[in-house]
Amino acid sequence: MAKYGFLGLGIMGCPMAANLLKAGHELVVWNRTPDKCAPLVAQGAARAGTPAEVVAVCPVTFAMVSDPEASLELLFGTGGVLESIGEGKAYVDCSTVDPHTSIEVSPSITEQGGRFLEAPVSGSRKPAEDGTLLFLCAGDQSLLEEIRPALDAMGKTIHFLGEVGQGARMKLVINMIMGGMITAFAEGLVLADKAGIAADDLFAVLDGGVLANPLFRVKGPRMAAGDFAPAFPLKHEKKDLRLALQLGEELTLSLPTATAANAAFLRAMNAGCGDEDFSAVLKAIRG
Amino acid sequence: MAKYGFLGLGIMGCPMAANLLKAGHELVVWNRTPDKCAPLVAQGAARAGTPAEVVAVCPVTFAMVSDPEASLELLFGTGGVLESIGEGKAYVDCSTVDPHTSIEVSPSITEQGGRFLEAPVSGSRKPAEDGTLLFLCAGDQSLLEEIRPALDAMGKTIHFLGEVGQGARMKLVINMIMGGMITAFAEGLVLADKAGIAADDLFAVLDGGVLANPLFRVKGPRMAAGDFAPAFPLKHEKKDLRLALQLGEELTLSLPTATAANAAFLRAMNAGCGDEDFSAVLKAIRG
Amino acid sequence: MAKYGFLGLGIMGCPMAANLLKAGHELVVWNRTPDKCAPLVAQGAARAGTPAEVVAVCPVTFAMVSDPEASLELLFGTGGVLESIGEGKAYVDCSTVDPHTSIEVSPSITEQGGRFLEAPVSGSRKPAEDGTLLFLCAGDQSLLEEIRPALDAMGKTIHFLGEVGQGARMKLVINMIMGGMITAFAEGLVLADKAGIAADDLFAVLDGGVLANPLFRVKGPRMAAGDFAPAFPLKHEKKDLRLALQLGEELTLSLPTATAANAAFLRAMNAGCGDEDFSAVLKAIRG
Amino acid sequence: MAKYGFLGLGIMGCPMAANLLKAGHELVVWNRTPDKCAPLVAQGAARAGTPAEVVAVCPVTFAMVSDPEASLELLFGTGGVLESIGEGKAYVDCSTVDPHTSIEVSPSITEQGGRFLEAPVSGSRKPAEDGTLLFLCAGDQSLLEEIRPALDAMGKTIHFLGEVGQGARMKLVINMIMGGMITAFAEGLVLADKAGIAADDLFAVLDGGVLANPLFRVKGPRMAAGDFAPAFPLKHEKKDLRLALQLGEELTLSLPTATAANAAFLRAMNAGCGDEDFSAVLKAIRG
Repeated sequence: MAKYGFLGLGIMGCPMAANLLKAGHELVVWNRTPDKCAPLVAQGAARAGTPAEVVAVCPVTFAMVSDPEASLELLFGTGGVLESIGEGKAYVDCSTVDPHTSIEVSPSITEQGGRFLEAPVSGSRKPAEDGTLLFLCAGDQSLLEEIRPALDAMGKTIHFLGEVGQGARMKLVINMIMGGMITAFAEGLVLADKAGIAADDLFAVLDGGVLANPLFRVKGPRMAAGDFAPAFPLKHEKKDLRLALQLGEELTLSLPTATAANAAFLRAMNAGCGDEDFSAVLKAIRG
Repeated sequence: MAKYGFLGLGIMGCPMAANLLKAGHELVVWNRTPDKCAPLVAQGAARAGTPAEVVAVCPVTFAMVSDPEASLELLFGTGGVLESIGEGKAYVDCSTVDPHTSIEVSPSITEQGGRFLEAPVSGSRKPAEDGTLLFLCAGDQSLLEEIRPALDAMGKTIHFLGEVGQGARMKLVINMIMGGMITAFAEGLVLADKAGIAADDLFAVLDGGVLANPLFRVKGPRMAAGDFAPAFPLKHEKKDLRLALQLGEELTLSLPTATAANAAFLRAMNAGCGDEDFSAVLKAIRG
Repeated sequence: MAKYGFLGLGIMGCPMAANLLKAGHELVVWNRTPDKCAPLVAQGAARAGTPAEVVAVCPVTFAMVSDPEASLELLFGTGGVLESIGEGKAYVDCSTVDPHTSIEVSPSITEQGGRFLEAPVSGSRKPAEDGTLLFLCAGDQSLLEEIRPALDAMGKTIHFLGEVGQGARMKLVINMIMGGMITAFAEGLVLADKAGIAADDLFAVLDGGVLANPLFRVKGPRMAAGDFAPAFPLKHEKKDLRLALQLGEELTLSLPTATAANAAFLRAMNAGCGDEDFSAVLKAIRG
Repeated sequence: MAKYGFLGLGIMGCPMAANLLKAGHELVVWNRTPDKCAPLVAQGAARAGTPAEVVAVCPVTFAMVSDPEASLELLFGTGGVLESIGEGKAYVDCSTVDPHTSIEVSPSITEQGGRFLEAPVSGSRKPAEDGTLLFLCAGDQSLLEEIRPALDAMGKTIHFLGEVGQGARMKLVINMIMGGMITAFAEGLVLADKAGIAADDLFAVLDGGVLANPLFRVKGPRMAAGDFAPAFPLKHEKKDLRLALQLGEELTLSLPTATAANAAFLRAMNAGCGDEDFSAVLKAIRG
């Protein structure tokens, strides 16, 4: 069993780190608000005072934070990863960021002799807990092979997508499609409701045809019941839509349903739903 | 085995009628352009000169035409269904129409003593051929029970949704969600392509996560290959999106991704893709 | 001076009819809710019990109602215009309707020997009161020449646009542009406000440049002050946007800002602003 | 008469600098591609090799470049403004940038003892040539008073809007409204054309009502004639729309017609119209 560092213990990071522990690995953790470390320390993890301290004592450190700004702060901030990274040290960023961030992070590590793997995940709280995430890896492929046992402890599928930036790009494409799908589904639910169609009838018809998918199956009954407890917070999906549209802008691409979904998510944010589940976009549709 | 009439032998109607024949039922068919009857006549169907002639000799007549206008013409036109409908005759409309059309059609039949079942289907050419359609029925529930063997020959699932209009409404909700999903998927494909992500990688990641669904699985490789042979013609999905948005307008509902999808489909129509598969909306996204 | 009939005494019809009286014409009026006739009767108009009674006693009858349905009811309903129209009778419809309605109305009148002029107006309550409306005429040009004194009493400019339907089409194009402009302006106002820019500074800059126009000049200060007393009710602009988009659909045209404005107006309707001024679309933007 | 520096001699900068010369001021100019300096040198301007050289010899230097990146390069690049700025030197940036850029630029100058005025302009090539621009100033108000003669030589109206960033914000709001208006107008033109309405009739009706404005008056006939010679290049309006939407995102504001206009401009860019006039968005509407 190996020794890993883990930075960022939020909705995703906490169960991911826990799965590393459960698999028998040694773990050193850090979180911006230190009390979030307690459950993992109780399970046997060590706690460090800064990201740099984690990297100093671990050959491989994972990071899982919420946005590009947090990801950059982790590296470049005081007590950041760059203060300790170097020969024999590897850094694996599982956060969903834009490709520019990955592309900026990578050389800052490799120029100091460290190794870098971009590894954003597809999947939310439940897959993180169940160890069934998808890893969208890019960058140092030999590093990927070395840490495969760790990735296997946290996920069920590992994709290698080429050079740094491709992991971030794939993640944005996936979450952009998801944003369109959940909004289209929310529109269907609201239209059905106003048209006198029972939600259960709609779910049954959807689930019997070519549109059947786990997202609708899991979210549908909760949305119909008004249960928006966050598995994947709306503000994070909002961020991903913005980053995907930005990528589209750079490639001179107009993305109509993604743009429409982004606007609906903005209205949901404005209505104070940022910390609810991303399926709360339903509220912006219902108006 | 029973005797059925069948009006409308297009992409959907032809295989549906063929499945009735295969199940051993006696069949009388009619189509606006008569030569489309030939394959079914070759399989044993009789041919009639007008919808009225079909109804005159069949206790139950199915209809499957492309839009509300065609559906109304079938009934109210010269030689139309209304000229023969009456006591002991039943009419089952499988066309996708707006609820107003169903609601207008129903009393015109029942006032003459006939019985009416609204039964639009979910599923395109392949399920029509395989006899695995979903029927979204509304109206005369006892009629539904009587013709269940015929519906079983053409489909795999039968939903009864209440009063006339609810079949049409459910169909519009489903196809509206489908329009949003296919457009979101097309956007993802185009963005991935421009961002240097291989289509197969995208499909593998999508298929391993919560968004996995038969629509993406079937359409994806064809869209990536530029194969837009029509299973469900784009102009029909365009019509359904328009009708769904109209329903939304009547219910004072703004439907953002459906509206965006509708605009993309309009551009695809304008670019001459109306007779291609509805997944050709990809071309409007690629620009 | 001539004798005119006038059907429909709402926000627009009442001041238009009053201007005919002021110009010295004899007037016979009718309104669905009869009490709205009182002010005009007090000014010297006669009151009739049905549209047919108005037409029976007037060589030329104007109509100004709120939508296509009301316009058709005026003609085809019990006691409607068609019961009296015929040789020597002319009908001038100033309502904003879709071209199909005009095209349906016209022959129903001319086939009975009557004459028809389509004459929707551009301008809201204030121009109606001031007699400064724009008339967008189409149909019987000789009739236009005969009633020019009446049109001059109500408006300042008269356009003749060709065959029946072109008046309606022009009106829809104009009001579609207006819907886009007021929404764009509302977005600017809300963005400026949230960005700490004073509304008066924004108005001054706008008014000094190429975007300067009477609509912004009149509506701006009222919108900034939250004054949405109806000059042109929001529900009417909503209807016009819907009809314009319908015209676009028929011509296979995607109209992006009109579609976006329509969605914003829908949300405003849903929020209960239908009877406020159309500039209340601001509320849907502010969220 | 005073001595001024001028950086950036494009479509806007060249005529602005020429107006300073015409007013009798002494001028030192610089442009990234040096040959653009020739016409001004022919009129009496001196030429410098770098922005730093301009600032070194001029008490006040104006800049007019095309986007935030160019604006930052002017300051922070090799041979940039920051190498010479200091006590007794002032810098006036007339470029349209996002507020973040202005807010980043300002202290980099003032911390070295220099003075800064943000002064983006409203108006395109013709007003730049005619000296009738609008200046949207923010920052050092005493500097504004000192250089008023120079601003008067280039423009007709000067607004002071408060602290640094407010000039940029106002400019983005104005150009966002303009993007919505030109797109709404283009949609009206295309719809009118497809509906058989003559462009001249449309222009006459528009110009007689509350929507009448110089933008439509100037652009209309050119758009109808297919003349898209750039007064304000489409790619610049595209950039402004993107920056305005970004400002909206930061303020959690959904801006529907601006978003729709941005998508239409993206499609126009994708169709290769970036260097044409921004009214060429018409082509993206026509499809």
